[in-house]
Amino acid sequence: MTASSPATVVREVGLRDGLQSIARVLPTAQKIEWITRAHAAGQREIEVGSFVPARLLPQLADTAELLAHAKTLPGLRASVLVPNLKGAERALEGGADLMVVPLSASHAHSLANLRKTPDEVVAEVARIRAARDAAGRKTLIEGGVGTAFGCTIQGEVAESEVLRLMQALLDAGADHVSLADTVGYADPAGVSRLFEKARHLVGERLWCGHFHDTRGLGLANVFAAWQSGVTRFDACLAGIGGCPHAPGASGNVATEDLVFMLHSMGLPTGQDIEALLALRRDVARWLAGETLHGTLWQAGLPKTFRAAAAAAA
Amino acid sequence: MTASSPATVVREVGLRDGLQSIARVLPTAQKIEWITRAHAAGQREIEVGSFVPARLLPQLADTAELLAHAKTLPGLRASVLVPNLKGAERALEGGADLMVVPLSASHAHSLANLRKTPDEVVAEVARIRAARDAAGRKTLIEGGVGTAFGCTIQGEVAESEVLRLMQALLDAGADHVSLADTVGYADPAGVSRLFEKARHLVGERLWCGHFHDTRGLGLANVFAAWQSGVTRFDACLAGIGGCPHAPGASGNVATEDLVFMLHSMGLPTGQDIEALLALRRDVARWLAGETLHGTLWQAGLPKTFRAAAAAAA
Repeated sequence: MTASSPATVVREVGLRDGLQSIARVLPTAQKIEWITRAHAAGQREIEVGSFVPARLLPQLADTAELLAHAKTLPGLRASVLVPNLKGAERALEGGADLMVVPLSASHAHSLANLRKTPDEVVAEVARIRAARDAAGRKTLIEGGVGTAFGCTIQGEVAESEVLRLMQALLDAGADHVSLADTVGYADPAGVSRLFEKARHLVGERLWCGHFHDTRGLGLANVFAAWQSGVTRFDACLAGIGGCPHAPGASGNVATEDLVFMLHSMGLPTGQDIEALLALRRDVARWLAGETLHGTLWQAGLPKTFRAAAAAAA
Repeated sequence: MTASSPATVVREVGLRDGLQSIARVLPTAQKIEWITRAHAAGQREIEVGSFVPARLLPQLADTAELLAHAKTLPGLRASVLVPNLKGAERALEGGADLMVVPLSASHAHSLANLRKTPDEVVAEVARIRAARDAAGRKTLIEGGVGTAFGCTIQGEVAESEVLRLMQALLDAGADHVSLADTVGYADPAGVSRLFEKARHLVGERLWCGHFHDTRGLGLANVFAAWQSGVTRFDACLAGIGGCPHAPGASGNVATEDLVFMLHSMGLPTGQDIEALLALRRDVARWLAGETLHGTLWQAGLPKTFRAAAAAAA
């Protein structure tokens, strides 16, 4: 294991997926401190924001500034979410290393949230790919297939539809795809089934799993996805983000808990848990009054826990 | 799948492992209501208490009364914890269907908690077996190997020692053995490793996994153990129990969350989640002021969730 190839990547999405459902706008200076300290704690992939219109999500209006800051940190892959070509153009201008284009496999959710059908999103990815190539940029394009395990609006989402759209995203020019349990409906058996099929279909181009912990199964789902061969997972420090349909329920899996699980399993991530917990304390202070999640901060590390795995990364 | 053979058993241990770390003594009438309603919700294995001296655990002083009540409920396997021969004699007198004899694989933890070495507990199991046979009872004997994944006192616990003690319990006359992560140190990779070795060694006589959720990995650990072939798991309604070494941290995996996970995976347990959630509400009221856990009660069931699996059991 070398410094450049940790076995497993925990990608911090707290600044985007976490903060986007928190109304009180966190000052840019605090977000910059968050990014700087997350990087110092060993994080090498951070989603800093989303290029959506500021009037829709005032919380993320400073994404360009955060991206510019992230680019000053050595070895950091700075990613942004882009809902469309216009957002992608801003990401390319800003020099993002990765753009995540969200697609919802649920037709109903796609229309409600993105105002496009899933196939219209695929067509947009083709335009984004063309724009990237025309700009001569190396910015990676990731197609993020959300509501892959069901949807609060339409209910069931067919596996065949998820797999079709995943392939369509790659055919349209995405470099990678990820699968997301956007609403916390997945269970580990379902994750094993879908991730194994998806890996069989597209191999390592399926490179990330995104799980919400809404019903407590987030880490079990990560474990199931990891068994299928995926080694990159999204997470939010302190599990922030929540679920708009279930007040008080958890958001994404908590970064610090996920890193703890992976290190306990002997899988280095390159991240320093103590530094994450220290950062968590400050994020909790900045977000005082919001519902936070996670368990490790309260129980502390086991006596048997070794930082050896982390050090190896 | 018939009514008598649910694929997976969730054994309720809230009345013993859960309540034993809660100082305020719950009235016997409420415990009786708990057992009655848990049975009505489909629970068929309930650990009703522990035959320890009442002065040590006033909370569990009414175990004999609860056992007598449990025996009136059709199809219910009523179990009790027994720390020694004296406790086992009370369990046999009371007509328990199952006695769980706890052994701590950590030598230091064993001396601190049970005032015996692990091998002295094995010798006690031989005496318990002799007493059962002499009484002509069918009461099952389960050797529960605790601190199987590490210990807050001595730290590491060797896998070889866990496996040796497990085999020794069976050789001494236990009918079954279980493995317990008493302090929430286990991770899913470690669980896979140990449970696979244990199953290889003793087959289906390893019949139960007991996981605490102290650091959020409880359900991931259950999933890993289930993959090894074990189909019986302990759980506490509302995740009560906590950890004496980590105030506020979670106890056992929450029954309702575990049943939800298993049903989502298509594994019937015979339990009615809605009835469990209703019972949880009352238990929460009875224990007002105590820290409870679990996630499902807050997020609610997914739109896609089907009770079909439960109905099949």
